[in-house]
Amino acid sequence: MTITQQVANFIYKEHLLEPHQTVVAGVSGGPDSLCLLDCLHALGYPVVVGHLDHQLRPGSGDEAKYVEKIADSYGVKAIIGQENVRALCGGGKSLEEAARLARYRFLVHVAKTHRISVIATGHTADDQAETVLMHFLRGAGPSGLRGMLPATKMDTWRGIPDAIGMTLVRPLLNLTRDETQAYCNARGLSPVVDHSNLDTTFLRNRLRHELLPELETYNPGIRNVLIRMGQVMAGEASLLEGLVAKAWDTIVNEVGDEALTIEIAPFLSQSISVQRALVRTVIDRMRPTLRDVGFETVERALDFIEEGARGKRLPLTGGLEIMRLQDEVLISFPGAAIAFPHLPQLTSSKERTLEIPGKLQLAQGWSLFVDEKRLPQSDRDDFVYSETAMKASFDAMSIHGPLILRPPRQGDRIRPLGMQGRMKVADLFINEQIPQPARANWPVVACDDLILWVVGLRMCHEARLKPESEVALVLHLRSSQEEVP
Amino acid sequence: MTITQQVANFIYKEHLLEPHQTVVAGVSGGPDSLCLLDCLHALGYPVVVGHLDHQLRPGSGDEAKYVEKIADSYGVKAIIGQENVRALCGGGKSLEEAARLARYRFLVHVAKTHRISVIATGHTADDQAETVLMHFLRGAGPSGLRGMLPATKMDTWRGIPDAIGMTLVRPLLNLTRDETQAYCNARGLSPVVDHSNLDTTFLRNRLRHELLPELETYNPGIRNVLIRMGQVMAGEASLLEGLVAKAWDTIVNEVGDEALTIEIAPFLSQSISVQRALVRTVIDRMRPTLRDVGFETVERALDFIEEGARGKRLPLTGGLEIMRLQDEVLISFPGAAIAFPHLPQLTSSKERTLEIPGKLQLAQGWSLFVDEKRLPQSDRDDFVYSETAMKASFDAMSIHGPLILRPPRQGDRIRPLGMQGRMKVADLFINEQIPQPARANWPVVACDDLILWVVGLRMCHEARLKPESEVALVLHLRSSQEEVP
Repeated sequence: MTITQQVANFIYKEHLLEPHQTVVAGVSGGPDSLCLLDCLHALGYPVVVGHLDHQLRPGSGDEAKYVEKIADSYGVKAIIGQENVRALCGGGKSLEEAARLARYRFLVHVAKTHRISVIATGHTADDQAETVLMHFLRGAGPSGLRGMLPATKMDTWRGIPDAIGMTLVRPLLNLTRDETQAYCNARGLSPVVDHSNLDTTFLRNRLRHELLPELETYNPGIRNVLIRMGQVMAGEASLLEGLVAKAWDTIVNEVGDEALTIEIAPFLSQSISVQRALVRTVIDRMRPTLRDVGFETVERALDFIEEGARGKRLPLTGGLEIMRLQDEVLISFPGAAIAFPHLPQLTSSKERTLEIPGKLQLAQGWSLFVDEKRLPQSDRDDFVYSETAMKASFDAMSIHGPLILRPPRQGDRIRPLGMQGRMKVADLFINEQIPQPARANWPVVACDDLILWVVGLRMCHEARLKPESEVALVLHLRSSQEEVP
Repeated sequence: MTITQQVANFIYKEHLLEPHQTVVAGVSGGPDSLCLLDCLHALGYPVVVGHLDHQLRPGSGDEAKYVEKIADSYGVKAIIGQENVRALCGGGKSLEEAARLARYRFLVHVAKTHRISVIATGHTADDQAETVLMHFLRGAGPSGLRGMLPATKMDTWRGIPDAIGMTLVRPLLNLTRDETQAYCNARGLSPVVDHSNLDTTFLRNRLRHELLPELETYNPGIRNVLIRMGQVMAGEASLLEGLVAKAWDTIVNEVGDEALTIEIAPFLSQSISVQRALVRTVIDRMRPTLRDVGFETVERALDFIEEGARGKRLPLTGGLEIMRLQDEVLISFPGAAIAFPHLPQLTSSKERTLEIPGKLQLAQGWSLFVDEKRLPQSDRDDFVYSETAMKASFDAMSIHGPLILRPPRQGDRIRPLGMQGRMKVADLFINEQIPQPARANWPVVACDDLILWVVGLRMCHEARLKPESEVALVLHLRSSQEEVP
């Protein structure tokens, strides 16, 4: 089978391109990208060549002109960009990383200008082996070790917002570098020599020229080992993705934009690998720009989920913290607005006055209804001590002044119905095992200094219905799930 | 936390030993094993020390005596063995492998003689990092990359049949080599220096003294990377084991001792990782002594299962071959006796005579019943052309001579009931899509040269029931699943 046929088969098998689909080809001028251009052209794909002059060496402009000339020989348009890549690095970003980002940003720009949605690069099996080794050395998890995929959706690419909807394809991923070089020789193509490829201060070049040859003394087939490891890990990663997707809804709850909870019991019933993948996915959801989530972070989270005591918090990574609630852990940014759909919460900390009769909206579809009810003589006995989680009834005559809905304040106290003494509202929350982050926005109904109702939890003794009460003030909490009566 | 406490915690958390459980400790005399012995003793576990003199160097006997002396200082029994390890290698077995096998065989022997079921070794986190790296270089799959487990059942250990029921535990697997050395210093223990540890012709020593320091220039935390990779891979391996166990019964059928079939459709509905693991497990079932099943073998099997044409065969590994049947592939040793529990098969190729009435046993619980039935005038019409897969009725008067049950022979022909011409029995098998390996043992009932019934498939036209038939000869096939009427 010829190289061109191999490439055609790979494109077909991996669904990389539709027949005659237009594609932007990243062409540096080296053997890999010349092979790519030649194959794509031979297979009838309309191509736009993109080449970024990194301006790292004098003479880099000549390479750009050479690529332009080659594109011309195919009757193909070449877009040449220029970027002072050296100026882009710093801030923890290596020259290699900066160059890589600039290159993709440029190719995406070319694609967007030409309304093309696929970008092809000349990555080979050798690049794949190096990538897997690099990730291995860095300590990437299974999803890192899978290396480059034949096709990657670029939607979530960090630093390239324009990449949404674009796909990066690698039609040469099954060819070796030697094969692309041999192809160029056979087709009379003269690749430029990229001198930066020999600069071993670049990590990738050091791997290529020093470490891989060294590893070959242990196993001459080490490149294949790395490539196959990438394939195996790609399988594992996709298996885990599927299992995480399946488990997600029963284990993870989104509580506001910047917080998630994990339900502990069903989480722990998953296998350890799925647990790890769930934690990684949760972190990735909340911090999509975080590149490498370390193994230690994941293990720390697992330990905490299994053993963390209620109310305990632990910093996780990237500003996130994990906190133990009741049967769940909460993962959030400290101070984030957290929505607890299963608990009544205020929409703001502003005081609001309750009209009688009236209704006030709480967060997440909850609402609070107020009404007055004249009590017929016969009913009064039944109303004494009337309190449920969703409803509290008061003696209207004991309440002097407007009803205020507000969050709890430091020092708030209440004498719960039927009890002798007063207690701190803060202690009430603890007794009732209300998740700590849900306390600050808990609705409280007060009249002057008297706390009438810590909504859904306890009403006060002082304003209770008495046998002689003639009018009941009824507060009624309704959750979003509850049917309208 | 002291080292002893750390070891105690690890033993507890990983369920390595029951309190006061007696254990054989493998003690070379180096820092790791002295630390092991001292900790086990301090934690109250009764110990028997095992030490094998490998006789690789002059002076190895002195080490043995030193270990004996140390054991004595703990008031503990030491069993010293001797083995000329150099004489054991060869046949593809390296000196390291031979030494390792001899050592474990000796420790198992010590355990067995003392009726002890647990053997402890002093493997540390550094050993773990080296093991994972070694497996990585060799190209092991996920289950190889998991490295050493804290506890390993030794039942299936190749070359040590006595190990059945024994467990190998590694209480120091969370300690570094530096920690065991520091422990020895602090406790005034003087480990012997094993000079073979410095011999870099041993692969492990080369990794330890050359490759790992080299990798540390890429990532100073490479040892931790390797250890954590082992942990992640252990998780993946156990996840896959669970998924394989779950899928096994609906996908894999044992057809005799030396053959398995894989049902293609449910196999392909599994994720690629589970498919790989299933193939590995199938091979491992059939060739448990095969150590490393290569990635290429697995991929070849996957390709074949997806695309292999019916009747095609492919050598797999270790003498196994894979063959496409109908909706299944068969994995077997060429020429192996294959049992198809869902098909009627002879137990041997020997001819047997059928008594009338009578019953003959077939393989896998199938049986063949013979009976004669006098036909009342009124029934005869119903019997004409009477044939089902399980039952064939013949005109007794058309059969002259004893009924023979035998396998098909080359050139066997039959005129199937209701058809004009004769056909080869071999072609009948093809038409009926009988798995090739099931054909040689297919039961055939013949009388002289006349094939009466290719059992369960077609009966002959010549001896059919006719309207004038007075006696029917009824052959009845019964499968193991079928209820006795």
